[in-house]
Amino acid sequence: MLDAHRIVPPMPRTVLVTGLGLMGGSLAAALSRAGWNVLLHHRRHEVAERAEQSGYGRAVTDPAAAMADADVAVVCTPVGVIADTVRALAAAPGAAVITDVGSTKGRLARELSAQAAGGRYVGSHPMAGSHRQGLDHADPELFRGRACVVTPTAASPTRAVDAVDALWRDVGGRVVRMGPDEHDAAVAEASHLPHILAATAAAGLTPLGVPLASSGFRDTTRVAAGSPELWSGILRDNRAAVLAGIAQARARLEVLAAALAGDHAEDVHAWLAQGSEARRRFDDRGH
Amino acid sequence: MLDAHRIVPPMPRTVLVTGLGLMGGSLAAALSRAGWNVLLHHRRHEVAERAEQSGYGRAVTDPAAAMADADVAVVCTPVGVIADTVRALAAAPGAAVITDVGSTKGRLARELSAQAAGGRYVGSHPMAGSHRQGLDHADPELFRGRACVVTPTAASPTRAVDAVDALWRDVGGRVVRMGPDEHDAAVAEASHLPHILAATAAAGLTPLGVPLASSGFRDTTRVAAGSPELWSGILRDNRAAVLAGIAQARARLEVLAAALAGDHAEDVHAWLAQGSEARRRFDDRGH
Repeated sequence: MLDAHRIVPPMPRTVLVTGLGLMGGSLAAALSRAGWNVLLHHRRHEVAERAEQSGYGRAVTDPAAAMADADVAVVCTPVGVIADTVRALAAAPGAAVITDVGSTKGRLARELSAQAAGGRYVGSHPMAGSHRQGLDHADPELFRGRACVVTPTAASPTRAVDAVDALWRDVGGRVVRMGPDEHDAAVAEASHLPHILAATAAAGLTPLGVPLASSGFRDTTRVAAGSPELWSGILRDNRAAVLAGIAQARARLEVLAAALAGDHAEDVHAWLAQGSEARRRFDDRGH
Repeated sequence: MLDAHRIVPPMPRTVLVTGLGLMGGSLAAALSRAGWNVLLHHRRHEVAERAEQSGYGRAVTDPAAAMADADVAVVCTPVGVIADTVRALAAAPGAAVITDVGSTKGRLARELSAQAAGGRYVGSHPMAGSHRQGLDHADPELFRGRACVVTPTAASPTRAVDAVDALWRDVGGRVVRMGPDEHDAAVAEASHLPHILAATAAAGLTPLGVPLASSGFRDTTRVAAGSPELWSGILRDNRAAVLAGIAQARARLEVLAAALAGDHAEDVHAWLAQGSEARRRFDDRGH
């Protein structure tokens, strides 16, 4: 007798991950563990074979052919070749939704207009990473609890957006949806400008100040220790939003300088209160 | 028979602490525990009596009279009355060395020229504190391991400088000697500018960026949560050095903006490398 309440396990879904560095490798490892069929592709096939040997899925040589079997494809290549890779996959047969993990989204969204990518592309930016790069440092827990931004446009089909949301939730991510340009502005203010201001504070320390630098200096400048190579790429990639943020920071500093130069106690206080209130909004954010 | 190797305990030394807030109270508590005779003075005598009841020393009503018995006097009054208090103590009989705990030193050193303070004054700045103010929060461990800056001038007698050094070492401080103006510049770069840049980063966070702000934002902006009242006083007090630091920070940001606007990869990289190298100097500081 058939049991109408029997829970039917969902069909395992298939994902193509192309580009098996730290991000792609970690994603393949996490999705494989979450029960997805993972197809592994890398420009150099031996990297895909190493990922297969690590148990992250099955290595494939022809990503366009693999698209016929995939529900979702995730482009994890270096930022410079994301757009071309998405376009090539979008031209392949099948209906797989395509996303990427590039750290800026506005320019890509414009390059991959709905027409060019066949309405199958929705950008992503999982805010996860490590100073250790490459497949050998892949970590299936890399995305756990991290903001995974999904950046639909007006042209994005709901089906595609939902599929990308579901993928990030399956690896433990906290899905945040916003438009591509909003994403770039948000990540500038939440991450890129703090990095720049931390580096500015760090660079201001001369041997004279070193004996007096303490826990405040340590925390404020911690991120400035990050790789100049990595951060140079990040800032250049998001340069429009970053330049707007720098202009705003310089204007803010000018306001404080004017208040101090005129010894306007109330203005100095109000300026500092803005910072402490904004910091409180962050502490109260509830995630 | 006399034992030539017998260790003669040093005569207990006497200190007058005037101004029994968090700093004065903590210093009295720490010196009392370290074996000093502590004379306690406060504008309102009941505060000195409370300190005496806490076991921090003996309350006195006339600080000028107490100077005859003191080896060192430490002025822990609000910053606005430090200079007048030092001058009044310096006019008293005796040879007690006078120091203070004000957080800026250049202007004070000029006001208290060797003539005016009778060559008995040497500035101090113990880099310790708490968001909790007042005698009730006095903590004899407040200075343990903290930089205690001693700021002699060319006119400072060695005897006076050594006595002030010894006092800070007796409460567990790490003594750092530098000139008064060097102190103000050093504390601006090690503490005041990092605070300002942290507040700038915090104030840049809008509701759009809140969901993306993570550990980098948290650490970079931690100090920005500090009291605007307290920090307004600190920044205004050190305003010459702080204004120079703000100008330098704005110039640094302009260099980065130009490099990004022109997409000069090497310049962006070099700018970031300055920050990461300076941060490394801090990590390698060995204290």
